[in-house]
Amino acid sequence: MKKLLAGVAEFQQNVFPEHKALFGELANSQNPETLFITCSDSRIDPNLLTQSKPGDLFICRNAGNIIPPHSQSTGGMTASIEYAVAVLGVRQIVICGHTDCGAMKGALDLASLDDLPHVKEWLGHTRSAIEVVKAQHGSLDQSLLRRVTEENVLQQLQNLKTHPAVAAKVACGELTLHAWLYEIETGGVCCGNSDEHKEFQPI
Amino acid sequence: MKKLLAGVAEFQQNVFPEHKALFGELANSQNPETLFITCSDSRIDPNLLTQSKPGDLFICRNAGNIIPPHSQSTGGMTASIEYAVAVLGVRQIVICGHTDCGAMKGALDLASLDDLPHVKEWLGHTRSAIEVVKAQHGSLDQSLLRRVTEENVLQQLQNLKTHPAVAAKVACGELTLHAWLYEIETGGVCCGNSDEHKEFQPI
Amino acid sequence: MKKLLAGVAEFQQNVFPEHKALFGELANSQNPETLFITCSDSRIDPNLLTQSKPGDLFICRNAGNIIPPHSQSTGGMTASIEYAVAVLGVRQIVICGHTDCGAMKGALDLASLDDLPHVKEWLGHTRSAIEVVKAQHGSLDQSLLRRVTEENVLQQLQNLKTHPAVAAKVACGELTLHAWLYEIETGGVCCGNSDEHKEFQPI
Amino acid sequence: MKKLLAGVAEFQQNVFPEHKALFGELANSQNPETLFITCSDSRIDPNLLTQSKPGDLFICRNAGNIIPPHSQSTGGMTASIEYAVAVLGVRQIVICGHTDCGAMKGALDLASLDDLPHVKEWLGHTRSAIEVVKAQHGSLDQSLLRRVTEENVLQQLQNLKTHPAVAAKVACGELTLHAWLYEIETGGVCCGNSDEHKEFQPI
Amino acid sequence: MKKLLAGVAEFQQNVFPEHKALFGELANSQNPETLFITCSDSRIDPNLLTQSKPGDLFICRNAGNIIPPHSQSTGGMTASIEYAVAVLGVRQIVICGHTDCGAMKGALDLASLDDLPHVKEWLGHTRSAIEVVKAQHGSLDQSLLRRVTEENVLQQLQNLKTHPAVAAKVACGELTLHAWLYEIETGGVCCGNSDEHKEFQPI
Amino acid sequence: MKKLLAGVAEFQQNVFPEHKALFGELANSQNPETLFITCSDSRIDPNLLTQSKPGDLFICRNAGNIIPPHSQSTGGMTASIEYAVAVLGVRQIVICGHTDCGAMKGALDLASLDDLPHVKEWLGHTRSAIEVVKAQHGSLDQSLLRRVTEENVLQQLQNLKTHPAVAAKVACGELTLHAWLYEIETGGVCCGNSDEHKEFQPI
Ligand SMILES: [Zn+2]
Ligand SMILES: [Zn+2]
Ligand SMILES: [Zn+2]
Ligand SMILES: [Zn+2]
Ligand SMILES: [Zn+2]
Ligand SMILES: [Zn+2]
Repeated sequence: MKKLLAGVAEFQQNVFPEHKALFGELANSQNPETLFITCSDSRIDPNLLTQSKPGDLFICRNAGNIIPPHSQSTGGMTASIEYAVAVLGVRQIVICGHTDCGAMKGALDLASLDDLPHVKEWLGHTRSAIEVVKAQHGSLDQSLLRRVTEENVLQQLQNLKTHPAVAAKVACGELTLHAWLYEIETGGVCCGNSDEHKEFQPI
Repeated sequence: MKKLLAGVAEFQQNVFPEHKALFGELANSQNPETLFITCSDSRIDPNLLTQSKPGDLFICRNAGNIIPPHSQSTGGMTASIEYAVAVLGVRQIVICGHTDCGAMKGALDLASLDDLPHVKEWLGHTRSAIEVVKAQHGSLDQSLLRRVTEENVLQQLQNLKTHPAVAAKVACGELTLHAWLYEIETGGVCCGNSDEHKEFQPI
Repeated sequence: MKKLLAGVAEFQQNVFPEHKALFGELANSQNPETLFITCSDSRIDPNLLTQSKPGDLFICRNAGNIIPPHSQSTGGMTASIEYAVAVLGVRQIVICGHTDCGAMKGALDLASLDDLPHVKEWLGHTRSAIEVVKAQHGSLDQSLLRRVTEENVLQQLQNLKTHPAVAAKVACGELTLHAWLYEIETGGVCCGNSDEHKEFQPI
Repeated sequence: MKKLLAGVAEFQQNVFPEHKALFGELANSQNPETLFITCSDSRIDPNLLTQSKPGDLFICRNAGNIIPPHSQSTGGMTASIEYAVAVLGVRQIVICGHTDCGAMKGALDLASLDDLPHVKEWLGHTRSAIEVVKAQHGSLDQSLLRRVTEENVLQQLQNLKTHPAVAAKVACGELTLHAWLYEIETGGVCCGNSDEHKEFQPI
Repeated sequence: MKKLLAGVAEFQQNVFPEHKALFGELANSQNPETLFITCSDSRIDPNLLTQSKPGDLFICRNAGNIIPPHSQSTGGMTASIEYAVAVLGVRQIVICGHTDCGAMKGALDLASLDDLPHVKEWLGHTRSAIEVVKAQHGSLDQSLLRRVTEENVLQQLQNLKTHPAVAAKVACGELTLHAWLYEIETGGVCCGNSDEHKEFQPI
Repeated sequence: MKKLLAGVAEFQQNVFPEHKALFGELANSQNPETLFITCSDSRIDPNLLTQSKPGDLFICRNAGNIIPPHSQSTGGMTASIEYAVAVLGVRQIVICGHTDCGAMKGALDLASLDDLPHVKEWLGHTRSAIEVVKAQHGSLDQSLLRRVTEENVLQQLQNLKTHPAVAAKVACGELTLHAWLYEIETGGVCCGNSDEHKEFQPI
């Protein structure tokens, strides 16, 4: 905790002063253009990756960058998406998976998750991705981790389309949806297309 | 989108190179010490606020920094908490609310959310905070926004304690829980105590 | 009831004999090529409409020909789709809406459904269709019934894509999905395309 | 698909013309007397079996002709029943099981359904039928398929009675409930009595 | 609290000694013959009413003596019934409603419960009783409180029959179900019959 | 049943007359000071244990004296607690576990509950207690039954704090919460403290 508190003190003394004007402007409202959905993984810093400033990205993060399909029972993603699209009026949504994702490794080996009942159930939302890759390759193992990670981003994008606010804005051309894969080791970003089930291409 | 892509290019050309060694080390594993739970609000940058580096913070973000109590139906927060505590073994959890929170304003005026059914239902998880402040003050309005925001952090901390992995580690002294409030305009951070229902104090 | 029993007797005496060979072949197995999903409306007879014989169509029917998105809580549609695709191996799925649909009229006037709480909640699954048409036309009334009915079929097709067995077979080209609208008065059938949000065209 | 489209063309050219008057009458309303609930099985054609015309039967179909008990979470059956009874005012409900039902075979061998999680969970609604037959016979195997199929129809009828609109109309004598078993091979129909747990008798 | 603690002390000094042998016998097992389900109301003492001793009645109590129908989501009643019937092997189940029941008054005036969202939703399980009485009498008001209370007991008995363990034992004649109404003011007990929807008769 | 009816007759003839005045006063209202939550176990008689009279204790009982955390899906405990606290205004809540509890034995051996799916799922609400004791002792077996029973009472008390009405009254000092363990064999009562995870002490 000490380290964290020291970091805050450092921020307050040396960093905040140079952003003072920006934070002052932002004190009473936000107007982000992008909803950025990514994994909780500690190695991802969306603001660093996109060189964005406070106020630019409305960010949702959970293990596996998963977006449950729209349903009658509300969860955090459903509510946050509704807020970002219908209240804040974001113009684009990025779903950003990443290499070496612990959630995707778990999805490839659900049997290993018997002591993690909630992780296991949550990863049920990756089942379409798993089934697609399995159907394409005939079988499944950790060597297909990257393909599963890509397909997972595409599946979550498919799920995203079932949310009413998203569907309406997309139909009117007021909102675009983007599927990204971030490579931790190289800093590379690839993107995919929801109509195709194949390897993502560098942006 | 153009701006976002330009940001990624900037990152790849000018920023990544100086972090290359760190990202190389992190390519195949993460070992964060802290689970940081905060609002999706675009004005919060947890890494900036705590001057943390990639690999330091496992981050969950949703509208209102809400943690549903442990239950039989798994959501993203429940799964992500289980993963952070039981798999990654984080040593501390910070729940960080913030000033001018749109979710908290909504919680104070649920009637205004009739067109946002999912936001409204999700804010049902703030009802204890609302009821506590209402009971303490006799009535409720936007002038109590800060107190509601503080109580919401405390309530989510209470909810957090119902999660099995958290309860076990806290009972053994291997995990500590922290309630923060971040002031956007000043960069200040205050913290609260779950046994008291009163104003947070600067850290 | 008398009429129904008379109909069964008529079937047994005069109709069954001419189908005896077919029913004999079908006694111990079925092998339908099509999953046909349509409204419970009494005016629709899928076998009549497609001139299909017993054994041809695996049929799911509910008020509004609705397909909830894939989720963790199983309902009849989810289970029946899984059975049709993964066990029976159907090659195509038709979602068939129809003119003068009571469910769609209800979806356009939810306030009229306060005494029908379950119908009202079930029609929550048509909300994307409603929102799309509303966004395209600026407002909503019964004059848009046909467009809403068409968009509802498209939305259910979108929901269908979130089901793992469906996603896998579609990705491999082993399953095709079709959006139909049946016109009761004329016997006409139009079809739509999930990538476009516009009037269906006659097949 | 070609075959299906040819069937529609055949219907439009040769069949529709002789029903033109009926479909014209039905263009703007339906007034069915019966809610007919049966399995999705391709070998069942309710209109053929009862020699009914378009407009006669409001039809709900799912794998196993299952009716979940009334509860706080709405599914398709619950909503469709509410619509048929409270809006359309049907006078009778028929639940029609059938011989050689794949769902009932699955219910007798749940362990075989591990790759079909939703079918397996859905068949949880047949557990009372399974338990009754098991209690009566001391053990369970596929030789008891017919008895399980009969008991399943009785259980679903029991579940049906928990739906408020059904309970009210039954209490007032305005609605009757019927348990049928259709024999695919012979065209026979037997019926059962919810107060007795024994073999159905030919109607 | 003082009064409660004084009561415990009184029990330990003056009451326990005379039951010492019985409690000794019961220390390591229970074998109750009856599952007694009643309202949480403070005026009901099941042991006093039936002059039962410790070990005789397995007791479930909640506001309104409600038994949700069997479903896929487990609650306390479902689990407790399964335990009582399948593990303890009780031979009879009594559902005991009572006069002047606050829950039933609430069910007759749901609009008054807007500040009690959970009570209101829980009383959704009394809707069949409400609908039956309304259908029989044409309208509803507090003058029908007793009839609603009786019908509620009958409805919960209907719900009880959907639970697999109950259905199996009832089918085999190993378990009987009883509908009671307890009159607080007179000490009277009436009972009803699930096949009839009319006034209960004194036992 | 005969024995139960004889008990009621005995109550009416010999016991009710001496309480006639009290029951007369209570005929049209209740005003209990305590919400008493305990196991359904037949060996517990809350009125006997606390030497309370009709009207003193609002009593909720289920297998394992479990209180699910507050959530969006209402169950009997949630509704009954809301009613007791917000409508009746109880001043204290006692959660009373007990020795030799069948539910706690089951929680220590979930694998033995495969034929009791609902009991097993319900005992999921004891998982924090199990995890705490396991973490403290390194492993788990029936020798830790008492500690698990105590921790379960503490966990349910923790869950209780997530209910809005409870949180509000506790914050204002208008409601106190108590954790008890009742020893069937000795008549002893011990109590625990939610901030400590150690053996309960005699009251
Ligand atoms: Zn990840
Ligand atoms: Zn916020
Ligand atoms: Zn329709
Ligand atoms: Zn079938
Ligand atoms: Zn009551
Ligand atoms: Zn117990």
